[in-house]
Amino acid sequence: MASDVKITELALYADRVASAAKGAARALAVATGEHKDRWLRLAAKRLRERATDVLTANARDVAAAPEHGLTAAEIDRLRLDGPRIEAMAAALEQIAMLPDPVGEVIEGHVRPNGLEIHRVRVPLGVVFFIYESRPNVTTDAAAICVKSGNAVILRGGKESLHSNLALHALLRDTLVEAELPPDAVQIVETTDRAAVGHFLRLHEKISVTIPRGGKSLIERVMAEATMPVIKHYDGNCHVYVDRAADLAMAQSILINAKCQRPGVCNAAESLLVHRDVAEAFLTSVGPDLRQRGVELRCCEQSRKLLPGSRPATDDDFRTEFLDLILSVKIVDDLEQAIAHVEEYGSHHTDVIVTNDLTAARRFVAGVDSAAVMVNASTRFNDGGEFGLGAEIGISTDKFHARGPCGLRELTSYKYVVYGNGQVRS
Amino acid sequence: MASDVKITELALYADRVASAAKGAARALAVATGEHKDRWLRLAAKRLRERATDVLTANARDVAAAPEHGLTAAEIDRLRLDGPRIEAMAAALEQIAMLPDPVGEVIEGHVRPNGLEIHRVRVPLGVVFFIYESRPNVTTDAAAICVKSGNAVILRGGKESLHSNLALHALLRDTLVEAELPPDAVQIVETTDRAAVGHFLRLHEKISVTIPRGGKSLIERVMAEATMPVIKHYDGNCHVYVDRAADLAMAQSILINAKCQRPGVCNAAESLLVHRDVAEAFLTSVGPDLRQRGVELRCCEQSRKLLPGSRPATDDDFRTEFLDLILSVKIVDDLEQAIAHVEEYGSHHTDVIVTNDLTAARRFVAGVDSAAVMVNASTRFNDGGEFGLGAEIGISTDKFHARGPCGLRELTSYKYVVYGNGQVRS
Repeated sequence: MASDVKITELALYADRVASAAKGAARALAVATGEHKDRWLRLAAKRLRERATDVLTANARDVAAAPEHGLTAAEIDRLRLDGPRIEAMAAALEQIAMLPDPVGEVIEGHVRPNGLEIHRVRVPLGVVFFIYESRPNVTTDAAAICVKSGNAVILRGGKESLHSNLALHALLRDTLVEAELPPDAVQIVETTDRAAVGHFLRLHEKISVTIPRGGKSLIERVMAEATMPVIKHYDGNCHVYVDRAADLAMAQSILINAKCQRPGVCNAAESLLVHRDVAEAFLTSVGPDLRQRGVELRCCEQSRKLLPGSRPATDDDFRTEFLDLILSVKIVDDLEQAIAHVEEYGSHHTDVIVTNDLTAARRFVAGVDSAAVMVNASTRFNDGGEFGLGAEIGISTDKFHARGPCGLRELTSYKYVVYGNGQVRS
Repeated sequence: MASDVKITELALYADRVASAAKGAARALAVATGEHKDRWLRLAAKRLRERATDVLTANARDVAAAPEHGLTAAEIDRLRLDGPRIEAMAAALEQIAMLPDPVGEVIEGHVRPNGLEIHRVRVPLGVVFFIYESRPNVTTDAAAICVKSGNAVILRGGKESLHSNLALHALLRDTLVEAELPPDAVQIVETTDRAAVGHFLRLHEKISVTIPRGGKSLIERVMAEATMPVIKHYDGNCHVYVDRAADLAMAQSILINAKCQRPGVCNAAESLLVHRDVAEAFLTSVGPDLRQRGVELRCCEQSRKLLPGSRPATDDDFRTEFLDLILSVKIVDDLEQAIAHVEEYGSHHTDVIVTNDLTAARRFVAGVDSAAVMVNASTRFNDGGEFGLGAEIGISTDKFHARGPCGLRELTSYKYVVYGNGQVRS
């Protein structure tokens, strides 16, 4: 009986939070850009002033981190200090400087009967954002959502609960101070995992759920959500070194794509090499990769050129390692490379290195990924690097938003029509 | 046991159809506009030449229609004849004349490091389209999907099965003749309702499901679909007559919106009138509506001005009548009108009639509907009337596509990036 009561309470709690968010979203949708930006700059100011409160709360999370089983690297990501607080405040100010997406006239024209048709950008409504550990994501996500006219319900990881509660208190206070609805930014105050399920049922109040975290989180959200989900799924990214590649460029791109930050979704996981350049390229890049600690899992042919490598299984070619591991395959031609990327890849980011215009154009047309790149590192698939400003995630879906999701990707549109009495005959 | 076998067979059947569609979609995605348009014109030509085959098949459907319980109006919509075949052929030729959405560079810019970033329009992939009775929808939907680079799986109503099979045979033959993949257009050959459920599970092969039909169909699809759904849900559309309205214009708009075609989603279902003009407007429009056979369901105040009307329930204000019925309410001011539309409406199409600029701008900002119109009939919310060309439905969602869904709304985009060896630091 006790558990029933608890479930009912969580359901009521979720509904109350979502209803408040929906009310706040209605007011936010018509707030001016100036008003929203004033809040962002105020929040930055108060964050600097109240840094001590946030650091104190964060210290509690860091102290409890070993209990939660966090690794040293995870604890480092969780930890805040003066420079990190300053970076968070600066990010809020940067978002204030981006153009307001709301109200943008995406296009407009006049019909022969004189009706003026405009397609105008509007907010989506309420965003339910589920994420893990790093507290800076809390302020970033709140800023991106509010700037794009959406209310947000934040659900951070339990490891960072105290940090997030302190940041949320600050954001809420500044919303009140800036005369914006305080429920524009809410935080799920319980760490009970069942709470998430209750929010995922509220499709009449929550417009979109954005899960950012491991595969199991995303799969749970996909299975349970009754509203649209913007997924940030796996990135099994390829670098294909074409017959006509500049091999020095290819080496520099591959090393950057694999080694610069191996634990992120836009790092390369698989190398494809045209057979005509396989020997020259692999004997040059192999020692470089080995020296950087990269484990190579190779097809039969490439193994012969890469001493110390191990054979790749079919599964290896499907795997996002998120580590210093690279699968390697020699292909007969461009078409085989494209077919491999389409069969084994995850449609995230795939690169061809070539100086052959026809090959570049064919790869770009044939590979159906969020970003297809010619002669550049996979690591550039990122909102900041693409010039979109801040992002809340990278969508691996094709529906609604694809690739980096910034302010614009958190909007919809409405048709606004002006006439002078037109009726339809 | 027999039913288990059958379910397995349906599952295999759905999977085979969806796999073939996915293969066809890959080829279609890189087909040129010229190639697709050649097919559309060829299909129009063959449709005219083979009209007799289609009419013979259609006669079987019409003969069986009373068994399926179709009304006279429904049988009329089902029936084909020479002029209707010609209109279907002409529609194919019109779609051939629309610009190809695929490959459109939506935007592009150069980053400070020299990377060229383009956002390029690409097809979604495979569309599963579920619709009812009218056979012209079969050719329209096939044309819109293929022109936008998508393969389509058509699931028409059982009432029009023979017509649809004849049309599909013709479309398939012309795809072969035009050297496009024949599986670009497939039809579900069984009328077993369980088949739909199997297709709705195939999110790895089907990109989007578009149900067009009654509420129960759409609710079933929403509950069962594992892929995104573009919903064409109800249209509880409002006409609000403001204090500053030109009352003759308001009357003409209301009569058009309510009476020109009452059975469609963009017909008006509810009239709101500012109290300052309620008496003048209602005593003038009331007799006009009554004469056209419109039943009025009124709030307490408006009932006094509309003799012969009946009281409206709260439910009446929430109902899409799709018939010659209108709910009527007098409001105290513009804000009450907006609040009513937001509370009772379905976010489809809502109109303000006013000559007050501030009121018009406030209504447009405050009403969150797919189309918000000033001084024009609700009936204009339509792909053709908006100048989008053909449409496959009107989306009542805010995610991905909103309002009329034409060629562009059946696409996604990819980022195409050109560099000369850039790596990330």
